[in-house]
Amino acid sequence: MKARVFVTLKTGVLDPQGKAIGHALNGLGFDAVGEVRQGKVIDIELAGSDEAKARGDLKAMCEKLLANTVIEKYEIELKG
Amino acid sequence: MKARVFVTLKTGVLDPQGKAIGHALNGLGFDAVGEVRQGKVIDIELAGSDEAKARGDLKAMCEKLLANTVIEKYEIELKG
Repeated sequence: MKARVFVTLKTGVLDPQGKAIGHALNGLGFDAVGEVRQGKVIDIELAGSDEAKARGDLKAMCEKLLANTVIEKYEIELKG
Repeated sequence: MKARVFVTLKTGVLDPQGKAIGHALNGLGFDAVGEVRQGKVIDIELAGSDEAKARGDLKAMCEKLLANTVIEKYEIELKG
């Protein structure tokens, strides 16, 4: 089973890297670009086919290692 | 319009960061974890509502700034 985990800064937490990307895009002439936020995406290959177990494991992985839940939030996406 | 851009290393390009995450997860007892790859996710707020134009702009942004297309690939997701 393949899983994709997104780890992004919580709303309200300053994101200087995202801001820098936004400014750079504006500078390149992309005027339509407004707010930009940057985060991490982690693609994980999981053995087994029990979706509920996988989801539970992924949640535990995020809480324990992948995300700093003080300032970051995570989303989990399973793709069969 | 909100867009989400994924920038990940091309298949075949070594990903030491992903490997480190994989090892750490295995070490924490998540034995089902196989290959792990890490990438970037960039959330972009775009003015205007022309989806085709937005898609074209985002492609140009990826080619010019967001991705190093020698070693990275990108995916674009538009969400209304």
